[in-house]
Amino acid sequence: MAQTHTVTIPHFVTEASVELTHLTAAYAMYGTPHIQPDGRSNILLVEHALTGDHQVDQWWGPEIVGPEGVFRTDQYCVLSINTLGGCMGTTGPGSIAPDGQAYGSRFPALTIRDLVHFEAAVLDELGIREVAAVIGGSMGGAKALEWTLLYPQRVRAALVLAVSARASAWQIGIQKAQMTAITRDPHYLNGDYYHTEHTPQQGLAAARKIAHLTYRGELEMDERFGTDAQTGENPLGPTLADSGRFAVESYLDHQASKLVERFDAGSYMILTEALNRHDIGRGRGGLNKALASSTVPTFICGVDTDILYPYHQQEHLARNLGNLIGMAKITSPCGHDAFLTETRQLVQIMHRFITRIST
Amino acid sequence: MAQTHTVTIPHFVTEASVELTHLTAAYAMYGTPHIQPDGRSNILLVEHALTGDHQVDQWWGPEIVGPEGVFRTDQYCVLSINTLGGCMGTTGPGSIAPDGQAYGSRFPALTIRDLVHFEAAVLDELGIREVAAVIGGSMGGAKALEWTLLYPQRVRAALVLAVSARASAWQIGIQKAQMTAITRDPHYLNGDYYHTEHTPQQGLAAARKIAHLTYRGELEMDERFGTDAQTGENPLGPTLADSGRFAVESYLDHQASKLVERFDAGSYMILTEALNRHDIGRGRGGLNKALASSTVPTFICGVDTDILYPYHQQEHLARNLGNLIGMAKITSPCGHDAFLTETRQLVQIMHRFITRIST
Repeated sequence: MAQTHTVTIPHFVTEASVELTHLTAAYAMYGTPHIQPDGRSNILLVEHALTGDHQVDQWWGPEIVGPEGVFRTDQYCVLSINTLGGCMGTTGPGSIAPDGQAYGSRFPALTIRDLVHFEAAVLDELGIREVAAVIGGSMGGAKALEWTLLYPQRVRAALVLAVSARASAWQIGIQKAQMTAITRDPHYLNGDYYHTEHTPQQGLAAARKIAHLTYRGELEMDERFGTDAQTGENPLGPTLADSGRFAVESYLDHQASKLVERFDAGSYMILTEALNRHDIGRGRGGLNKALASSTVPTFICGVDTDILYPYHQQEHLARNLGNLIGMAKITSPCGHDAFLTETRQLVQIMHRFITRIST
Repeated sequence: MAQTHTVTIPHFVTEASVELTHLTAAYAMYGTPHIQPDGRSNILLVEHALTGDHQVDQWWGPEIVGPEGVFRTDQYCVLSINTLGGCMGTTGPGSIAPDGQAYGSRFPALTIRDLVHFEAAVLDELGIREVAAVIGGSMGGAKALEWTLLYPQRVRAALVLAVSARASAWQIGIQKAQMTAITRDPHYLNGDYYHTEHTPQQGLAAARKIAHLTYRGELEMDERFGTDAQTGENPLGPTLADSGRFAVESYLDHQASKLVERFDAGSYMILTEALNRHDIGRGRGGLNKALASSTVPTFICGVDTDILYPYHQQEHLARNLGNLIGMAKITSPCGHDAFLTETRQLVQIMHRFITRIST
């Protein structure tokens, strides 16, 4: 784990014109940044996923980020900024506003573009004009794509994994279902629960279970659990109330508990909504025109069994991007999460990417 | 629409040994039943899906059931029985128990086998020993499969659409998420809400939206709605509370409202749980042994874009069934619901089936 640093952003205005002041950004660095006189740097900006954080080595591991990783930290400097709207050190809805109270429902709805503009402000504060590459999967991939269109002069290349050019109707539907699970929790209080004794943890748990089912492939899950009963429980009881759990329910309960312990429901709402609002084409003449206008060398990667961001969405990106430098498909029973779990394939793909942009 | 008839089943015991008495079964017939002296009949037993009903012509239409349908009602008699546990005339959790109160939480958890044993009791009451075929999709397909194993002497053939040999872990997970949406509704009262002024309609609506996203293909949904705003609303407002809906949200709200008007949350719980408990292999030496033991000529059909019952599950059925007479794949952007919506393909598949079993 790397040390968490912070930097203050004095002023920020969202895409929907909400002004925030005195924001904090948390970030971590792996390796030493080198910035040449012309501004070129050895920095790889790695974007984390929705409930991830800036501790990249904790989720991508040393095969990817480390002295012997594919992103060699004796050569490159991996920088990761905790997302605006989150709850891991950067300002989010649970942070204290200038009036001394938590933002709660006053915290603005954010778009992926907002998250990227905020990161650009962080780079400004750090004196970084340009990065060698921006790299990310899922929400991190959406950010990487927006980087290439918002700041093409600041990004020399991009590796975009397991994401699309915009939210699909299905994604919006399933993500709104998760948000409904949270808003229907009586402890949510329209987002203003930070001063109370309770948090909407049951709602967040219900949301995470739905999300997890979109992250994991049904094949992998079925091979592990099938219709097995949870040990010591009978899921086939005489009434619903008398019935225990299937093993897969226990697994999902465990996944949900883990998230509830480490993540804030308000941040989950804001970041899920940012994904609903992801749309490369907005204000740029539509999706394909926007993609065609991209000048940044971009490498696209998807997962064959992803139901959240199906592979045809990455094919769409690849067909329309203005400067495609490569494409790869991860083959996995794991679904969307393969961009985190299939290390051997990821290392190969990242090696192709890093070789291509180094020469 | 056909006339609804009812018949009384005096006594029924579930797989988990709960006894029910004085049950009502609602059913409809299209065409005239002919029963030969040896018991052979011209009856096609059509099984409806979870929130469907016995009015088959209302959901499969006249191209399928009618005088000029592929199931010609001047030749065959289409019989459909409303499912046990439902709310459309057959006994379910909202029905009045012998003590004069609604069953509510006392209503037993049911399995697909229970639903089939109940239908066999209905056929007994109607003096029908054998049907020419049993036909169904989704929950109806699960019932059709169980018919071939529980009562092989009473079913001359089966057409099984868009279902699997057992629930998958993913299905159980997403179906339990729907059940959680209902149980977390404060009006659910552990299932004992029938005597109150309220019903858990918000919970049922939330459940249906999740379900609908597993029924419809993401391609079809995305082509219709994409990231469009609902007319007159701004989904990109400055805060979450200030934001209107995307068009897909309005569509899902509408789908949910339609269901809430016509369906009972308690029945939704019981029937969803019956699908969780669907397992052809239980007590039969496992899935493949159970399927291999099947003697009833069975035709399998799936949908290429179904994420609820992916096509590999129908391939599994086809590979292992003891008496497979055919297989078909519906190609559609509509996902699971294609077994209801792709009439042209369905008619062709059903024609192959009916021809094969008539000769």
